[in-house]
Amino acid sequence: MKLSDLGEDRVISELTKNLPLSKEVKVGIGDDCAVIGTATDKEWELLKTDSLIEGVHFTPDADPKQIGWKAMARAISDIAAMGGLPKYAMITIAVAPETEFVRVKAIYSGLKRVANQFGVIIVGGETSRSPGPLFLSIALTGSVKRNCCILRSGGRNGDALYVTGRLGGSIRGKHLNFIPRVNEAQWLVNNFRPNAMMDLSDGLCADLPRLARASKTGFEILPNSLPLNPGCSPDNALNDGEDFELLLAVSSRKSTLLEAGWKKQFPKLPLTRIGQLTSNRLRSTPGASKNGFDHFA
Amino acid sequence: MKLSDLGEDRVISELTKNLPLSKEVKVGIGDDCAVIGTATDKEWELLKTDSLIEGVHFTPDADPKQIGWKAMARAISDIAAMGGLPKYAMITIAVAPETEFVRVKAIYSGLKRVANQFGVIIVGGETSRSPGPLFLSIALTGSVKRNCCILRSGGRNGDALYVTGRLGGSIRGKHLNFIPRVNEAQWLVNNFRPNAMMDLSDGLCADLPRLARASKTGFEILPNSLPLNPGCSPDNALNDGEDFELLLAVSSRKSTLLEAGWKKQFPKLPLTRIGQLTSNRLRSTPGASKNGFDHFA
Repeated sequence: MKLSDLGEDRVISELTKNLPLSKEVKVGIGDDCAVIGTATDKEWELLKTDSLIEGVHFTPDADPKQIGWKAMARAISDIAAMGGLPKYAMITIAVAPETEFVRVKAIYSGLKRVANQFGVIIVGGETSRSPGPLFLSIALTGSVKRNCCILRSGGRNGDALYVTGRLGGSIRGKHLNFIPRVNEAQWLVNNFRPNAMMDLSDGLCADLPRLARASKTGFEILPNSLPLNPGCSPDNALNDGEDFELLLAVSSRKSTLLEAGWKKQFPKLPLTRIGQLTSNRLRSTPGASKNGFDHFA
Repeated sequence: MKLSDLGEDRVISELTKNLPLSKEVKVGIGDDCAVIGTATDKEWELLKTDSLIEGVHFTPDADPKQIGWKAMARAISDIAAMGGLPKYAMITIAVAPETEFVRVKAIYSGLKRVANQFGVIIVGGETSRSPGPLFLSIALTGSVKRNCCILRSGGRNGDALYVTGRLGGSIRGKHLNFIPRVNEAQWLVNNFRPNAMMDLSDGLCADLPRLARASKTGFEILPNSLPLNPGCSPDNALNDGEDFELLLAVSSRKSTLLEAGWKKQFPKLPLTRIGQLTSNRLRSTPGASKNGFDHFA
């Protein structure tokens, strides 16, 4: 049986079943980040790794500064989606020895730029030679106030589903220079505590079922509700992936205040109600032709 | 300028100079692990990433269980060398989609085996497709009692230098199934607090100068003192790399008690005095023909 026959979600669940945990591990595999209790237990620690591979996540001709930006911003986006703030990063980079130093330096400059912007401190890492494509991996810690930690699994039947920003067409450029939604997530968590939240990396069509499955609910997407990037169809919004926007489930009684408050706080960024979580069996995604991005499919 | 012209140490120091730090960061780039203060400050957190790449750190025909073992054991070895205990791991694996699932499962089984043996809990990670070689990266946290944290930089002129085990020839098999020296390091730290310690990954000839440079000392290796693996020359012991033994600098007045205590505690594993730290200018390595392993050379 090859990985491509199983698909990404099956591969991960097979590899990680029956892993031992401990009482300090609040959340293990399956959410945007792992969550670890600390000595004081007022704040929890978040742990995340995320990697970029030449030929998979970017093309060899991509701007190296943007490659660095993307690598770090992806990991920050996951910390944000838990309601946390990013803290310490370690950078692993594997490149061919004949690579020009200026290229690697430019990658680092992109990494540092987004790190500085969001208060991330780079504390270590590793360089290695690669006999193949350039490989870049970020390990990032974060911290989250215990009562602000938002999981994928907290959604309830009837919750309103929202997404930030616009979806689809990220490959045309946004995937290399997006802004991780740290400020937006902090505002949401502190003012309207969503029941569930995650960042959209593989496309709504892959990610929303993950949130619903974790929350043990179904879902429905309202026809024509999706906030589309210019030139994008609903199919793009559902399947393109790499939107790096927030997907959240909020108690529907908070909707009016949330929508009004958001407009004041973030007048330039839409927050769009795209559907709701439903009783367990219902799963409705009008216009879905595929199921988002699968690494092994 | 290519990476191969600069060499690994120069590349790292160029990339990471002028990185902002914070008061919580006790040790940033340049030691075996980064060290981060915690809320209680009785224990510090250790952060480490380490990666294995097919064609660099193992051959395509290597036993996949041993690949997994090696990847996790390398990171554990770095935590041990700081005087710490390993805690939580995240696994990144990038493989070709046509890879057989049993191969990936066997890699994970090696990872889990050494994790279980040393109390490491796997809390997350990522799978991705690779268009080239198999890539495996481990991010590992650890904890160390504040007064047991041993850096590379604490060595003093006159300190006796010791290594655990035997050196050289690791490529013949040990590099895939070595035992990280967690128990030995804990015993050393709790009973004879070394002034400086690190694990030997690139060969004594590359690693000892790093310890001496961090400690602002010179060093000398005693002729014929190196503990050699069967069939190995002093040149092998100095340059082969991947020994994953501990190198430590201990106040020479502790030598007699340390050597006697070690023999009782670890009768099967040698602890060998190989030289001393010296005043700043002296650097003597009899028999050295190269300078250990450089990723970009």
